[in-house]
Amino acid sequence: MPRADPVITLTTDFGHDSPYVAAMKGVILGIQPAARLVELSATIPPQDVRHAAFFLASAVPYFPPETLHVVVVDPGVGSNRAILYVEMAGHRLLVPDNGCWTWLGAPDASPSKVIAVREPRYWRETISATFHGRDIFAPVAGHLACGLNPAKLGPVVDTWVRLERPRPRPLAKGWQGEVLFVDHFGNLISNIPADSTWLAPAILRVGKRAVRRFRWVRSYAEAKAGQTVALISSNGNLEVAVVQGNAARRLRARVGTPLAVEWPG
Amino acid sequence: MPRADPVITLTTDFGHDSPYVAAMKGVILGIQPAARLVELSATIPPQDVRHAAFFLASAVPYFPPETLHVVVVDPGVGSNRAILYVEMAGHRLLVPDNGCWTWLGAPDASPSKVIAVREPRYWRETISATFHGRDIFAPVAGHLACGLNPAKLGPVVDTWVRLERPRPRPLAKGWQGEVLFVDHFGNLISNIPADSTWLAPAILRVGKRAVRRFRWVRSYAEAKAGQTVALISSNGNLEVAVVQGNAARRLRARVGTPLAVEWPG
Amino acid sequence: MPRADPVITLTTDFGHDSPYVAAMKGVILGIQPAARLVELSATIPPQDVRHAAFFLASAVPYFPPETLHVVVVDPGVGSNRAILYVEMAGHRLLVPDNGCWTWLGAPDASPSKVIAVREPRYWRETISATFHGRDIFAPVAGHLACGLNPAKLGPVVDTWVRLERPRPRPLAKGWQGEVLFVDHFGNLISNIPADSTWLAPAILRVGKRAVRRFRWVRSYAEAKAGQTVALISSNGNLEVAVVQGNAARRLRARVGTPLAVEWPG
Repeated sequence: MPRADPVITLTTDFGHDSPYVAAMKGVILGIQPAARLVELSATIPPQDVRHAAFFLASAVPYFPPETLHVVVVDPGVGSNRAILYVEMAGHRLLVPDNGCWTWLGAPDASPSKVIAVREPRYWRETISATFHGRDIFAPVAGHLACGLNPAKLGPVVDTWVRLERPRPRPLAKGWQGEVLFVDHFGNLISNIPADSTWLAPAILRVGKRAVRRFRWVRSYAEAKAGQTVALISSNGNLEVAVVQGNAARRLRARVGTPLAVEWPG
Repeated sequence: MPRADPVITLTTDFGHDSPYVAAMKGVILGIQPAARLVELSATIPPQDVRHAAFFLASAVPYFPPETLHVVVVDPGVGSNRAILYVEMAGHRLLVPDNGCWTWLGAPDASPSKVIAVREPRYWRETISATFHGRDIFAPVAGHLACGLNPAKLGPVVDTWVRLERPRPRPLAKGWQGEVLFVDHFGNLISNIPADSTWLAPAILRVGKRAVRRFRWVRSYAEAKAGQTVALISSNGNLEVAVVQGNAARRLRARVGTPLAVEWPG
Repeated sequence: MPRADPVITLTTDFGHDSPYVAAMKGVILGIQPAARLVELSATIPPQDVRHAAFFLASAVPYFPPETLHVVVVDPGVGSNRAILYVEMAGHRLLVPDNGCWTWLGAPDASPSKVIAVREPRYWRETISATFHGRDIFAPVAGHLACGLNPAKLGPVVDTWVRLERPRPRPLAKGWQGEVLFVDHFGNLISNIPADSTWLAPAILRVGKRAVRRFRWVRSYAEAKAGQTVALISSNGNLEVAVVQGNAARRLRARVGTPLAVEWPG
């Protein structure tokens, strides 16, 4: 396998109409010109830490461990919230301390290292109060990509913000959960785990609606365009979709909307 | 010329609010850490194979032949639709068998190689029914970028889905065609070929509207902001545009809307 | 520090639903396969040269000087507007001559080199009238990334289009300026410079509205969600924001909207 230049991924809510991601890329390349920048997203919904958490948990595990993941979805910028360097489940991240990384790994998994980024020697000289992405995250990432020992960034810490993972509740015959993520197609991805009894006729409840007309399918292509379907999502959970349509819009659901599946008694 | 690391392009309808493209990037880099990922689009309209076909025909020809183009616009995911490795007009693609690649090259051109991707040895261990981009396309792309002989992916096949290219029809004095593509600016790109008689006063018909007030121009800058113009598009076909405006919106046109140009008798 | 392959950045208004950026990437890699493409934006608002100017001034300064910045926000494409190779404030750009680069550096700074790109030897063979990005900018960028001496592109020129920078006007007690940029979050970034007297109670005027209920803050996190705040933006100017909301929408402001800050007599 060829020796590859260091990869830094970027996940932000900055959009590309604003110059913020571009400035971060410039700062990183100014410090480590050989860095390979891989953008994961600039369109996390603004300040939506929970969306970022799902996004990271669904993407980071597929990367090789030497990758450095820089995440700037940071409603607390400029406050005294910490910036963390984290090693978790074999992955390396640079994140604001808002829990966005804590859905990585199994629910009871612990990070192998958490360092509070406090040493200004690796930051830009002037630090704005509103753009730590450019002034702290990017230069620290550049230095890490040059081989800097993370221990130099600041002290090891043992407390940090955790983002609760909403847990599904078993019903007499079924599950009560919620919509964990609405994807680009409007598919509703829930926190309800796959279940071997699934293919039996059931009732879905999405918010206050009872959805009786839907089909259990293995893949979207098994149903016709416009049909509501339930299936196992690519992350292993219950997903509700409208084939070639938008389930979020049809069922007026969004992140946090209650979602249940019940088998008649 | 320096020896360059392998380039893999990505064209999908996944958006960047969802983690799907990010997961694919991770899988590819996990197999071939030196791969250079070049994103062509994550915003093909959802499941719009025809849009993808125009997009690829307008972009792929400009790439050097050693590039590998990975395309996941795949409404048939999880069905028995094949996944194909294609060599066509000097280009290499990994595509769902839905015809998205068949507008490449001349209308009567044939691919030099089409292989059905069936050998699971080069896939991820567990294959979801809804996300072959992550589980099949990405790992196969990674292995190809490591130098894998495509013949190992599966058998050569000689049938595949073709996407019909809408043909323009000659009129007594003019052409009847349709809108083939609406670009980001709302410009209407038709399937009507450039014609040397073009600059003569004519009538455009867009859907049921007769557009008499328009100007033939060579470039947008020849007319004023807000004027409707007709010109030769960068792909050599008739294009209808509104200077610094949006022709699709003004003329209520979209892909498939009939578009004719007629010279008065 | 490892020797890095040449970096070319791309800033356009083409979007990624259209194949235009993709075609440019192909042309560049066809000429310089080792080029590292770093996309700054494909979503500059269509033909918005002023937006591009602010964007570039906020991003380009952070890049290392060897970077080549290719900018195609080009309402004048196909007219006789020039294409320029510019060296300015230590940065290298390839731009349409519409002033998009002239907000780089201090207001009175001069470029160290401006060359009119006229030598067709470094262009594609056929030049469309509507897509110079693919036919001129991309191949010229590829050749520059191969080490071409910019002097071969055409003659040095000493006139070019300048984009005026709107200047703030001092009031008896305050400043009259305007909205210079609306970012992805709807934050209003003005042309009013930071001022040491800022923290005193004041009135903001945004368009015709007098905004009395706002807080001076150092960072968004100091106020509650939904509050209107005024602060020093990451570029050093007065910014008006709504915490975790959208100030442009609430205050009905856009680029060019007058914005004043006044301290009561």
